[in-house]
Amino acid sequence: MKLFRFGAFEQEKPAVELPDGTQIDVSAFGEDYNEKFFGTDGVNRLRTWLETNAESAPRIEKGFRYGSCIARPSKIVCIGMNYAKHAYESGATELPKEPIIFFKATSALCGPFDQVIIPRNSEKTDWEVELAVIIGKKASYVDEANALDYVAGYAVHNDYSERAFQLERGGQWVKGKSNDTFAPLGPYFVPASEIKNANNLDLWLSLNGTKIQDSNTSDMIFQIPFLVSYLSQFMSLLPGDMITTGTPAGVGLGMKPQVYLKAGDVVELGIEGLGVQKQEAIAWKA
Amino acid sequence: MKLFRFGAFEQEKPAVELPDGTQIDVSAFGEDYNEKFFGTDGVNRLRTWLETNAESAPRIEKGFRYGSCIARPSKIVCIGMNYAKHAYESGATELPKEPIIFFKATSALCGPFDQVIIPRNSEKTDWEVELAVIIGKKASYVDEANALDYVAGYAVHNDYSERAFQLERGGQWVKGKSNDTFAPLGPYFVPASEIKNANNLDLWLSLNGTKIQDSNTSDMIFQIPFLVSYLSQFMSLLPGDMITTGTPAGVGLGMKPQVYLKAGDVVELGIEGLGVQKQEAIAWKA
Repeated sequence: MKLFRFGAFEQEKPAVELPDGTQIDVSAFGEDYNEKFFGTDGVNRLRTWLETNAESAPRIEKGFRYGSCIARPSKIVCIGMNYAKHAYESGATELPKEPIIFFKATSALCGPFDQVIIPRNSEKTDWEVELAVIIGKKASYVDEANALDYVAGYAVHNDYSERAFQLERGGQWVKGKSNDTFAPLGPYFVPASEIKNANNLDLWLSLNGTKIQDSNTSDMIFQIPFLVSYLSQFMSLLPGDMITTGTPAGVGLGMKPQVYLKAGDVVELGIEGLGVQKQEAIAWKA
Repeated sequence: MKLFRFGAFEQEKPAVELPDGTQIDVSAFGEDYNEKFFGTDGVNRLRTWLETNAESAPRIEKGFRYGSCIARPSKIVCIGMNYAKHAYESGATELPKEPIIFFKATSALCGPFDQVIIPRNSEKTDWEVELAVIIGKKASYVDEANALDYVAGYAVHNDYSERAFQLERGGQWVKGKSNDTFAPLGPYFVPASEIKNANNLDLWLSLNGTKIQDSNTSDMIFQIPFLVSYLSQFMSLLPGDMITTGTPAGVGLGMKPQVYLKAGDVVELGIEGLGVQKQEAIAWKA
């Protein structure tokens, strides 16, 4: 079972892809995939509901827009430099001793096939394929041994980053992480129960058909149970919150010479078992 | 007219304090002070509603708990080092050329008289009186000349900060800004129409009865219209979003020797026209 959302931006409806590939509208379940849904064991309730309602639920016609696979969460927590080669390509001289944390505006969320808007005055818009972890229940001071109990599932995220905004405009990375369309999420939310080991998934990204990021989530410096436990010492993670776990090597910032998005470029990315995204870059206009 | 929220944490009801000081429950208006309320001209709609309903609305008995004066927003955007003396006391050798931006977890929001919880393993919990700006309509690429049109109103905020978490734990300040109870907001949301000039308000904070922060919002390096315009280049500000505009000199980090909160300490703070907060510090316990 994979969860997704479809329809116009901010008017998305909840949907499910069944194991045989059938895609059904589950609006009749009566809930969006939001904080309340995740905080009340929504994934399992939905699974139970499907046992009696999947057959009669409306099938979805092809040609729809995929939205973000979850509703806007209370926060998007990002982990910086969590793959060794990426840390070095970004200019670090040593690896982080503790996770680097920053936030991304939740208003940046969009669908996995939406166009990515290169912001006004941007010259350094970059890509980052990342595994997103979605929290299933409130986590505060959680032990690493129990941390996976707080994870509802996983999704593909492209953590778009404007490197000049992030690094050359006076401190704190959030400035280059938060423009609209900078957080395509999905296409699918996949429940944790359907992923054998989230720290052993291939992930990749290609630019105009050439693969430039190619790694495995086992290469993370700080793995998922540690990250959930660690973050929960500094803030309460709420149901539906998203942790994006860092990107492997191969971003434009790390290339020599550096390469950044221009209008018309096409970015594709995916993670084993979670699906594939594709975005065309367009210039901002008023 | 001042807006506030009262009742148990996360079950707050909307309320209004009338010009004569009468406090009334406006649950019958049918809306919380959230994104939808601010995004649909809620302040003016509420004002109109009060014309016919204020007299019959239930009076509120004394002894209630004040909650955060607005519902949880999509984001809390913080401005760093926005008062010159505070920048220097924090160790800066020059003033920022552009605003420093960071986020604070919205899960840190609480009421203005709630106890502040010193986090587990914290030794450096610090205070910061700040003017909070609440956004009234979606702002993206807004000009400075029009920026105040996007402001719904103002409130007092204490931007609690764990300095070791913020500065000594591996990069990006959000780590020391986001613990639960680190964002007391209120008691009142005051509509922008009732504040003559938000960049000319006295603000102060006292620790155990001794005034240690004492300034005026005219001392901000970057003033409110510029901040709204500037931020809107890097993200969409949504209705109900909160910008907290930086703190003046007098934080514990800047003292010699440094002073940080211990259980039993009492922090009081206020801003001219917006009300007063008071928090007792308590130790975290499981």
